[in-house]
Amino acid sequence: MRYRRIPDETVRRLPIYLRGLMVSADHGREHISSQALADFVGVQSWQIRKDFSYFGDFGTRGVGYHIEKLAREIKRILRLDVIRKAVLVGVGDLGSALLSYPGFGGYGLDIVAAFDIDPQKIGAVINGVCVEDSSRIDTLRDRGVSLAIVAVPRTAAQSTIDRLAQVGIRGILNFAPCKVIAPHRVKVISLDIAMELARLPYYMPAGGAGEHPLAGRSSRHRAS
Amino acid sequence: MRYRRIPDETVRRLPIYLRGLMVSADHGREHISSQALADFVGVQSWQIRKDFSYFGDFGTRGVGYHIEKLAREIKRILRLDVIRKAVLVGVGDLGSALLSYPGFGGYGLDIVAAFDIDPQKIGAVINGVCVEDSSRIDTLRDRGVSLAIVAVPRTAAQSTIDRLAQVGIRGILNFAPCKVIAPHRVKVISLDIAMELARLPYYMPAGGAGEHPLAGRSSRHRAS
Repeated sequence: MRYRRIPDETVRRLPIYLRGLMVSADHGREHISSQALADFVGVQSWQIRKDFSYFGDFGTRGVGYHIEKLAREIKRILRLDVIRKAVLVGVGDLGSALLSYPGFGGYGLDIVAAFDIDPQKIGAVINGVCVEDSSRIDTLRDRGVSLAIVAVPRTAAQSTIDRLAQVGIRGILNFAPCKVIAPHRVKVISLDIAMELARLPYYMPAGGAGEHPLAGRSSRHRAS
Repeated sequence: MRYRRIPDETVRRLPIYLRGLMVSADHGREHISSQALADFVGVQSWQIRKDFSYFGDFGTRGVGYHIEKLAREIKRILRLDVIRKAVLVGVGDLGSALLSYPGFGGYGLDIVAAFDIDPQKIGAVINGVCVEDSSRIDTLRDRGVSLAIVAVPRTAAQSTIDRLAQVGIRGILNFAPCKVIAPHRVKVISLDIAMELARLPYYMPAGGAGEHPLAGRSSRHRAS
């Protein structure tokens, strides 16, 4: 099945819907309305319907979405319906924390190896994953790995991404706070944690003098 | 000065532009064209001009943007023109890594305290920040702190956010992979690391058979 070209922003929201659906399924529900899903994930219901409209008609009027069926469909669209092997490069503070991070399995993501240049770290086992010498990144070509997490210092980010691209990695989650370039066949998503925190003050009052003039107000509580 | 209501997506991109401008300034440049800034940050130039149009006319035809002036203006819009105190709650693997994370200072964000419930962690000093007993979150009301990072387990996230809201925190960066609710006066940005990684397979070929039919292709290399 082929779809029309999907906006990146829709692709960005699909995992949010998926998480909402997975939690709803855990609560024993079978159907959910677009409004209930909207309230749950904190996205407008028209936006949800528009995002889903790229893929066909998922809902039934008066009944809503069948949770399990929709979750399965989104997983298929996001290509999360098979187990994906991932590696981590850079076992510093953040890298170590990511190795211990419990959430990847829920999306079928399996971190199978980690790499570092520090001899003191090589050989360590963190959460069942052994830290290998970075020179062994070259072996990834034959190990069926398609995803990588890059948590190296800023100065090493570009060369790390170059090497990962060379050995056939197709998707990279980059935590180095800098601009990186990759061949077109490699999708890089950069996550700059400091920048995320830096978005917050915009929404805050200046000197405690009430709402920011720009901040939207829709309801007393907001979900996130 | 008051602006029209600014879309959240524009607010999300402003720090990206700011980072691009700061790096360009580090390279000794004084002006930058919207096209050069676009190439640098990986956003379309029309999008940059549209985002800036909410705030007035920043550029000069034929000369481009004055980097320092524009960076100062974006910092002012984002309210990053003063030092903001932040705290961290939950000093596990991820929390410890965040305390050591070097990038916050560049945006005027200063992590001044950390909290945990584990007696073994209380009293520890990480990157100059002392870990306090979580019961002391109540003291934040008098400590001039407006921002918090929440890195507690999923099950503790909502109660932590409730307490932070009660003591006057206005902006929260939440790493717990779950839905949380906060009073309207508190802006919560949730960052689900596993979900970010889960966005990547969409862009990858199915079984090595070439590009995903949906993936866009614009140039051979892409910036991120």
